[in-house]
Amino acid sequence: MVKTEVQVTRADIEAADQRIDGWIRRTPVIELERGAFGLPGRIILKLELLQRSGTFKGRGAFYLLLNREVPKAGVVAASGGNFGAAIAYAARSLGHHATIFVPRVTSATKQAKLRALGAELIVTGDVYADALAASKERVAETGALFAHAYDQFEVVAGAGTCGREMDEQIPGVDSVLVATGGGGLIGGIATWFGGKARVISVESEQTASLASALAAGEPVDFPPSGIASDALGASRVGDIGFAAAQRWVDRALLVPDDAIVAAQHALWDQLRIASEPASATPFAALMTGAYLPAEDETVCVLVCGANVDPALLATTH
Amino acid sequence: MVKTEVQVTRADIEAADQRIDGWIRRTPVIELERGAFGLPGRIILKLELLQRSGTFKGRGAFYLLLNREVPKAGVVAASGGNFGAAIAYAARSLGHHATIFVPRVTSATKQAKLRALGAELIVTGDVYADALAASKERVAETGALFAHAYDQFEVVAGAGTCGREMDEQIPGVDSVLVATGGGGLIGGIATWFGGKARVISVESEQTASLASALAAGEPVDFPPSGIASDALGASRVGDIGFAAAQRWVDRALLVPDDAIVAAQHALWDQLRIASEPASATPFAALMTGAYLPAEDETVCVLVCGANVDPALLATTH
Repeated sequence: MVKTEVQVTRADIEAADQRIDGWIRRTPVIELERGAFGLPGRIILKLELLQRSGTFKGRGAFYLLLNREVPKAGVVAASGGNFGAAIAYAARSLGHHATIFVPRVTSATKQAKLRALGAELIVTGDVYADALAASKERVAETGALFAHAYDQFEVVAGAGTCGREMDEQIPGVDSVLVATGGGGLIGGIATWFGGKARVISVESEQTASLASALAAGEPVDFPPSGIASDALGASRVGDIGFAAAQRWVDRALLVPDDAIVAAQHALWDQLRIASEPASATPFAALMTGAYLPAEDETVCVLVCGANVDPALLATTH
Repeated sequence: MVKTEVQVTRADIEAADQRIDGWIRRTPVIELERGAFGLPGRIILKLELLQRSGTFKGRGAFYLLLNREVPKAGVVAASGGNFGAAIAYAARSLGHHATIFVPRVTSATKQAKLRALGAELIVTGDVYADALAASKERVAETGALFAHAYDQFEVVAGAGTCGREMDEQIPGVDSVLVATGGGGLIGGIATWFGGKARVISVESEQTASLASALAAGEPVDFPPSGIASDALGASRVGDIGFAAAQRWVDRALLVPDDAIVAAQHALWDQLRIASEPASATPFAALMTGAYLPAEDETVCVLVCGANVDPALLATTH
C-alpha cells in the first residue's frame, strides 16, 4: 500500500517490518555492564550501525523499493551521504537502476563509494539544492521513482521498524535516545512507541533542526554546520517526522561537537563500535549528563550509523 | 570452587556463567541476510569482540579473579596480547594488582596499552619463554595468583560461557566455527555443546597447533608464524583444551593468511565489524569454502577479538 498523507501509523510500521523481513538485518542490542562510563541506569545500545549499507537508512530504502512499483527508469535520489548509499545498495540488491545526484562539493571518497555500489552518479551544481532540483527534473523526464531522504512515507515507516525491534528486544524499555537529522528516524520511532516509552531526540548544537522546529511550533530553517552535519544536516525537518515528534517526542536535546567526538572515541575504545559522529550523538547526551537516567531506568541508545573513516578512531587503547 | 584436574564440565561452565554475570557482557548475535557473501545456510555471527577488554579473554580473566582468593600480591600473567590485557582489565575492575610480564620484543603500543590498563609491566628477556619463567619466579616469591592464558580451569570454563550464550541465543544451532590458539576457547565451547552441535576449529596454516595435536594424538610443538600468530600463536595447545577437543571437536580446519585478511576486510566492509586477524579466521573458513554449510544449516561464526588497528581497515566502501 502506498500512502501519501503526512502520517505514518504503528500499523504502517508493522506492515513495513513484514515487507522488509529477510532483506534487512535484525540488528542486535548489547547491555553495558553496570556502572560503565560512570553512567546510572541500565544502558543498552541498539547496534543499528551493523545494518545493511551501514546505517538505518537501509530499512527505508529497502521498504521504498519493495513497496512501490519501480519503473524501468529506476530510482532517483539526491544525497551523497548515507541515504544515497542506502538507495544505491538496496537498488543493486533488488536489481533496479539507481541514479544519485550530488553537488560538486561531494568528496571524491563519497563519489567513489556510490559508484562502487553500482549507482549512476550525476555530479551537478554547487550546493545540495542544485542536485535536488536536477534529480526532480530527471524524475519528471523519465518517470523514475523519487526517493526522499527523510520525508517520505516508506522512509519513515521503514525507519520505524528499528523502534519496533527495540521494543521487542528490550521489554519494558523506559527511554530511547535517538539522533535526529531530517526527522525520519525519530518520527518513525516515536510513532512506534506512541508515548509508551520516552523518546528523546538528540542533535548537535549546530544541527538543531528539530529542537528549533519544536520551539517554533513548525518546521523552520536551521543552517547546519559542524562535525555531525554530513548526516544530521537537514536544514529543515520533514513534515512527517515533525508531526510525529510534536506529538510523541519527550524532549529534544542538544550536545556540543566536542562531546560527540568524545562519545565516538568512548564507543570505540570501550566497545570497538565504529560509530560516525552523528550516530554517537545520543551517547554523548548520556556522557555529558544532558540526559541523566534514574538508577532503575532502562535506556536504549540507538547507534545508527557506521559511515566513519576507521583511521580517525585510532587510539592506543 | 577451585578445580585443579584437567577436565572442565558443563556444570563448571554453568557455575562460571553465574559467577561472572554482571561483570562481563552478554555479547549479541547478528544473522546475515540470506545469500550474504554468496554463502549457503543461515549464517549468524556471535559478536564476542564487543566483550569487555575487547576479546573473549575477558570472560576467563574475570572468572579467575572472582573464583579465587586473590592475594595482596595480586595476579601475575605473561602475555603482551589479549590475555594480558584481559587480566589487567579485570584486575583493575575488581581492585586487584596485576603484574604482566612481557619479552622485550613486545611492541611499544602493546606495552602502552597494558600500562594504560593500570598493570605493572615487567619487560624482560628476549622471547616469551623468558617472560613466562620470570613471571613464575615472581609468583613463587610473592604468592601472587598465576594466570595462564589458556590452560587453566577458570580460563577454559570462562571461555565456555561464550558457548553457553550461543546455545541460548541460537536455538537449534547446527555448527559453530571457532578460532583456536592455545585451545582454551575451543575447549570451553566444545565442552558446553558436548557433541550437541558440530564444533569446528579453525586455525591459520601457520598456527596449526590444534590440527597438529589432533593428528598426533597429543599436544605437540608447532612453531607459530604469520598474520594470526599474535593471538593464535600458542606453540602447543593446552591439556584441558586438547582433552575436550579430542572428544568433541568435529574437525580442525586450516586457512591461509591471505584468506584471513580477505575475511577481515569483508567483515569491515559489509558489517563494520572490526575483527583482528585471528578472530576473522572462522569466517575465512566459510568464505574460502573450507567449511561449506548445507542450505538448511544454521551456522554460528564466533568473532572473538577486536584488537585491531582501525587504520588497517580503511577502505573506500
